[in-house]
Amino acid sequence: MDQINFWIGVIATVAVAVTGVLAIADRGVDLFGVLVLGVITAIGGGTVRDIILGVPVFWSASQMYLWIALGACVVAFFAESFFTQPQTYRWMLYIDGLGAALFGIQGVDKAWNLDFGLPVAPVILGVVTAIGGGLLRDVLAGRKTLLMSHELYAIPVTLGCGLYILVLNFLPQYTLEGSVICMLTIFGLRVAAIYWELRVPKLFITKTR
Amino acid sequence: MDQINFWIGVIATVAVAVTGVLAIADRGVDLFGVLVLGVITAIGGGTVRDIILGVPVFWSASQMYLWIALGACVVAFFAESFFTQPQTYRWMLYIDGLGAALFGIQGVDKAWNLDFGLPVAPVILGVVTAIGGGLLRDVLAGRKTLLMSHELYAIPVTLGCGLYILVLNFLPQYTLEGSVICMLTIFGLRVAAIYWELRVPKLFITKTR
Amino acid sequence: MDQINFWIGVIATVAVAVTGVLAIADRGVDLFGVLVLGVITAIGGGTVRDIILGVPVFWSASQMYLWIALGACVVAFFAESFFTQPQTYRWMLYIDGLGAALFGIQGVDKAWNLDFGLPVAPVILGVVTAIGGGLLRDVLAGRKTLLMSHELYAIPVTLGCGLYILVLNFLPQYTLEGSVICMLTIFGLRVAAIYWELRVPKLFITKTR
Repeated sequence: MDQINFWIGVIATVAVAVTGVLAIADRGVDLFGVLVLGVITAIGGGTVRDIILGVPVFWSASQMYLWIALGACVVAFFAESFFTQPQTYRWMLYIDGLGAALFGIQGVDKAWNLDFGLPVAPVILGVVTAIGGGLLRDVLAGRKTLLMSHELYAIPVTLGCGLYILVLNFLPQYTLEGSVICMLTIFGLRVAAIYWELRVPKLFITKTR
Repeated sequence: MDQINFWIGVIATVAVAVTGVLAIADRGVDLFGVLVLGVITAIGGGTVRDIILGVPVFWSASQMYLWIALGACVVAFFAESFFTQPQTYRWMLYIDGLGAALFGIQGVDKAWNLDFGLPVAPVILGVVTAIGGGLLRDVLAGRKTLLMSHELYAIPVTLGCGLYILVLNFLPQYTLEGSVICMLTIFGLRVAAIYWELRVPKLFITKTR
Repeated sequence: MDQINFWIGVIATVAVAVTGVLAIADRGVDLFGVLVLGVITAIGGGTVRDIILGVPVFWSASQMYLWIALGACVVAFFAESFFTQPQTYRWMLYIDGLGAALFGIQGVDKAWNLDFGLPVAPVILGVVTAIGGGLLRDVLAGRKTLLMSHELYAIPVTLGCGLYILVLNFLPQYTLEGSVICMLTIFGLRVAAIYWELRVPKLFITKTR
């Protein structure tokens, strides 16, 4: 399982970094900006989570994710035209959804194991892990953030993380199975949102005056 | 006194969350965004303060404020048309001013009791507690922040927090009375600013070229 | 050497605060906003670095840099027309470049001495120290950040910090000389960039679609 998690983590980091770069590429960013913003997209959420948890940031112990993210950004920069092909881009979005699922559940796990603000704070930290990097990127790049976009991205993550808290609390003997199911829930909802281009229904959006 | 502080805290959190939601409602935000941004407005300042202080964030010990803020955001979302009535909205602004006063003085207190960077850092942390959440919301919502708006919001907070430092330093036996007076100072200035629509005089604004 | 570092630090803080103020002055900011944003420009990078490192923020031990930055902001506000003269402004930019060099190398040193995420994290933290304050200011002021501007600012800092890591790792007996040379490298590249108005070549910029 750790082995699987490791490889999902690697593949997800690549996808998150690549989609992170592609999201800003149309604004004319230089290679240095691409590296910084792509890496922030990939590791920013986990960094904010660790700062709030008051534990050493995860990339102080091992720089592997940093290097993977850096490498993915360089590749995304030079192979931009490959990744922006509709078919490839859609695949990257799916894998990015897998990343959000993995990062979210990992974030919940970390907070839960530290007994941090049970039961609700772990959900918040799971969501922070999954979407924090993208928020930081958008703010630094001057883009509209996810929170204003009506995309179904943070909502699946929140549902999955909330579900996982229920598992941890009421079915602690099924933690492993529960984490897989919750990840698949997030991933499945995200795939559906990408495939059918689902958005938040108008009923749940404040009226623009 | 703790009892009073508690209830001011609850009412102020509601008002800060509600005004936090109303400030962004005209941009067409979905319910999830409303929850996230409203909660950030209510607890973001205290979170940044605790991170700078290097102590556990206040909502890791008790989630009460989180739940209150969440509830207030849901109500604000569904009863938006009630809260945006001019009369109601003005009342919310007044209570929000009370919140800024309470949060600012509490922030100074926390830093002072930790001997953190006396004498000037507690004032900074008081101001961070009072306005940090609103700044985070504005940045994430892509709004012009308070710092660019010439509103008399941060200035009353800074004056009150600075005054409170003088009390803590020179009249430590009057801490309780001093904290009430400083809160009323902030609140009073804020009420005056809302009532008479006062803004920073042109003399103290850089010229737009 | 400490003596020299101290005075470079003081002069650099003044220059960073002043250029920080001038960068936003054309947007019509009030004196309070000028103070907050100028101080954030001067001490924000080191603050973020210390939070990531998990050590007390540097201005909790000594407020000297805070006071210097505050004073410089007040002067910059009232003497804006002096500092915006092309000749004076250029000099401020040069000293600001010296500040970036000093802050960057100091950031690397601090992380290195804490054994924090060697070998790559110290470079990141050096860059954060040097440019973090400016990024925070730009985000709070609603300005396009450095990362989107194609300026040769962060790149010299990164090169110098990376070079310094090589010195610390392979030539630890020449740390002092190495730090001076790396600072001069950053400063020299920055002076060249200001003098010849160099920017990132088009080849390394993503195409605006």
